[in-house]
Amino acid sequence: MNPNIDLGMNERAWLLADSMIERAADLRVNVHTLENGARIIDAGITAAGGFAAGLALADLCMGGLGHVALTWLTMGAETVPGVQVWTDHPAESCMASQYAGWAIDPAGFFAMGSGPLRAMARVERDLFAKLRYAEQAQRGVLVLETRTLPTEDVAEWVSVKAGVAPDQLTLAVAPTASLAGGVQIVARVLETGLHKMDTLGFDVTRVSSAVGAAPLAPTARTDVRAIGRTNDCILYGGQARYTVDADDGELAAIAERLPASASSDYGTPFYETFKRYNSDFYRIDPMLFSPAEVWLTSATSGRTFHAGRLDLDVLRASLFGS
Amino acid sequence: MNPNIDLGMNERAWLLADSMIERAADLRVNVHTLENGARIIDAGITAAGGFAAGLALADLCMGGLGHVALTWLTMGAETVPGVQVWTDHPAESCMASQYAGWAIDPAGFFAMGSGPLRAMARVERDLFAKLRYAEQAQRGVLVLETRTLPTEDVAEWVSVKAGVAPDQLTLAVAPTASLAGGVQIVARVLETGLHKMDTLGFDVTRVSSAVGAAPLAPTARTDVRAIGRTNDCILYGGQARYTVDADDGELAAIAERLPASASSDYGTPFYETFKRYNSDFYRIDPMLFSPAEVWLTSATSGRTFHAGRLDLDVLRASLFGS
Amino acid sequence: MNPNIDLGMNERAWLLADSMIERAADLRVNVHTLENGARIIDAGITAAGGFAAGLALADLCMGGLGHVALTWLTMGAETVPGVQVWTDHPAESCMASQYAGWAIDPAGFFAMGSGPLRAMARVERDLFAKLRYAEQAQRGVLVLETRTLPTEDVAEWVSVKAGVAPDQLTLAVAPTASLAGGVQIVARVLETGLHKMDTLGFDVTRVSSAVGAAPLAPTARTDVRAIGRTNDCILYGGQARYTVDADDGELAAIAERLPASASSDYGTPFYETFKRYNSDFYRIDPMLFSPAEVWLTSATSGRTFHAGRLDLDVLRASLFGS
Repeated sequence: MNPNIDLGMNERAWLLADSMIERAADLRVNVHTLENGARIIDAGITAAGGFAAGLALADLCMGGLGHVALTWLTMGAETVPGVQVWTDHPAESCMASQYAGWAIDPAGFFAMGSGPLRAMARVERDLFAKLRYAEQAQRGVLVLETRTLPTEDVAEWVSVKAGVAPDQLTLAVAPTASLAGGVQIVARVLETGLHKMDTLGFDVTRVSSAVGAAPLAPTARTDVRAIGRTNDCILYGGQARYTVDADDGELAAIAERLPASASSDYGTPFYETFKRYNSDFYRIDPMLFSPAEVWLTSATSGRTFHAGRLDLDVLRASLFGS
Repeated sequence: MNPNIDLGMNERAWLLADSMIERAADLRVNVHTLENGARIIDAGITAAGGFAAGLALADLCMGGLGHVALTWLTMGAETVPGVQVWTDHPAESCMASQYAGWAIDPAGFFAMGSGPLRAMARVERDLFAKLRYAEQAQRGVLVLETRTLPTEDVAEWVSVKAGVAPDQLTLAVAPTASLAGGVQIVARVLETGLHKMDTLGFDVTRVSSAVGAAPLAPTARTDVRAIGRTNDCILYGGQARYTVDADDGELAAIAERLPASASSDYGTPFYETFKRYNSDFYRIDPMLFSPAEVWLTSATSGRTFHAGRLDLDVLRASLFGS
Repeated sequence: MNPNIDLGMNERAWLLADSMIERAADLRVNVHTLENGARIIDAGITAAGGFAAGLALADLCMGGLGHVALTWLTMGAETVPGVQVWTDHPAESCMASQYAGWAIDPAGFFAMGSGPLRAMARVERDLFAKLRYAEQAQRGVLVLETRTLPTEDVAEWVSVKAGVAPDQLTLAVAPTASLAGGVQIVARVLETGLHKMDTLGFDVTRVSSAVGAAPLAPTARTDVRAIGRTNDCILYGGQARYTVDADDGELAAIAERLPASASSDYGTPFYETFKRYNSDFYRIDPMLFSPAEVWLTSATSGRTFHAGRLDLDVLRASLFGS
């Protein structure tokens, strides 16, 4: 609503990171400090991690302004465990923070960066201009989906880009194929829909509140297969409901195009789609990345526009197939 | 069980209000202090509010003795977001506090008052005599469903009735047609059933614990339509389960009459019913206001008496019709 | 993963017990201190207890490393209230703490002991040898499912066995046929599956994380009938999903034998089975005590092995039959 107000997501995430470190044994995370002072919270590379670590990572990703919890969802005749997410700050917590939009690519390292530090670095200029959001803080938090522990060089590179000293950085990491990684990715169900709204040219700062859910993926045997399963939880099993300050015409214009089913690449498990494109992620239709089912309610008219549907056959093939 | 013991709901709610004020940016509530010192928490008139503000309002309404959270419910083939509520103090938290039974009507203002201050004011003499409940406290909290911010005069009027200084009052407000208002109303699913038990002549202090749920309503375009939708979430989509210190005969005598479906006005969206009675709320059958489905378990015999059923067609027409 | 590390479950539970005592009015528990200094938290014998007390008892039982909450589950066409449980420390929180495996049998008293004090007493030598788990602490917490308040003699007996002074003991109690007792028993859905894995010869320290759920039972009229109903919630309505550090062959070998339906005694309400064996608990097939439905995911291969199914007819007969 007031996208210019600094919501302090970095400071919120810093305090959450402090709490993770204090509860390291509960969360089964490993914590160490690099020589330049950057804190590393490892939730799945050398550490076992788990559901609690995944929920904590999701909280970091959303800058402390998301509400993420394990819950139970009906899928056909079954009740399955899933992740529920809601927020009253969708543009800030999902797009200015949670979206993994910052390529962290110093020599010898690559991961997409998520979390509130993006709103300090603002490397993604076009997006942040649209969001009209920036944070000023003395310290900040970045989340990386990776199987490689960040080194001093990585922390230094991030530090320079974000304009914050290395010893004022917390980097939290987990691989895709880990319990914690699985939770934090599925918790992106609202974010994927907002990102697609943005791609469709809709101003996401007009989204007032959002609530969604997606099933949990069983951990896969490789990161690539885990990308497949976790994406499928959103694309074929995820739902998102947005309350939007927009009139009926504006919502009608985007509703049908918003769910994953509107994509030409919809209908097979993500891993198969990926292989069909010779493992070239960038050949996949970007319109695929969205919840299976969406509801847009106009705060003006009270009307709801619904599009998409779950596809449990594809979901089951992805999660429980060979 | 011991309805005479002061459970300190006003003090609990005061501390919750302090926490809301501290988290004002997260909750998107506006806070101001009137000249006579009364604190106003606005969760939806000049403020955006949201789900978090609505849950906090519900907590205030229940004097800190309710457990309210967003959850997921199955409605036909769908999983929909809803509100779950449970309490081990149903008579106190629902009837002595949450029930909106106090008409706040100084000159130029009208709203029904909810929250623990009712148990200090005890203007509703007959009800509180039956509940055998009263609170003595230095400060108190009242919740108002309104689109008009309370003035000094309103606070002064409340202050006199409740016997507490104006600067020891917190008034929390939200309109019906707001995200926060929607959550706090649907969170009344247990209270409506208890109120109807009372209307049927049953002593609600014999209800030991209660658990219930109802779907969330998309925000409507006017307060009247929002009253319709939020009521329908309870009347056609709500369920409540009560554990009662009563024998089978007593429960059998009220079970069939307890759900909303026992009313002659059951079967059409509330807004249509309201219009059919020329917008005269008091012509609607008071027996309508109850959950769609109820279960009464006798703590003595262990038998459960079930009555009513969800009506998803009426619910969908209300929430997603024009 | 590192079963030798002391996770401090007794200290965690002690702090949770402190919090229960502080919230005694909310939780409707009675608290008293015996002459030898042992603290007794009564959640259902002389006290009313309730859902909140039951959740707190479940937290004590799991040594503060379980996450227990009320939730909503789909059972056929209905949404019913249930208990969800998840943990990233299944072997420790469920088997070294929650499992009611310690017979507390000084002269004139009998109850099965649950909670982290078991890991100090280690009376169950074989089990703790397999778990390779022990706790050293100055104080500890035991949970007893009983209708008899523990006396000084009982506390003294426990104190000697556990090697901790009586005034450093907290004993929390609730009968089976109570609201709190019902919650804490159904919260054993993960534990029953782990215990059966152990019985089948599988090393439960290889289970990395677990998530499960089971419906709540309406309170029964006697403790024996309550044992029936709460067991049936797990046996016919419970589900558990385990992530296991094991290969496909190992999981395939136990999956089909793991759910309750693999037992020859499966298929009738537990109370009837119990009566059929002339109320001799030890004649019932021990393989019966397990969730209705289980999923085992190999952390190595990512494959999931599923077995069992809910049986809602038996569950309904148990919970809502005469």
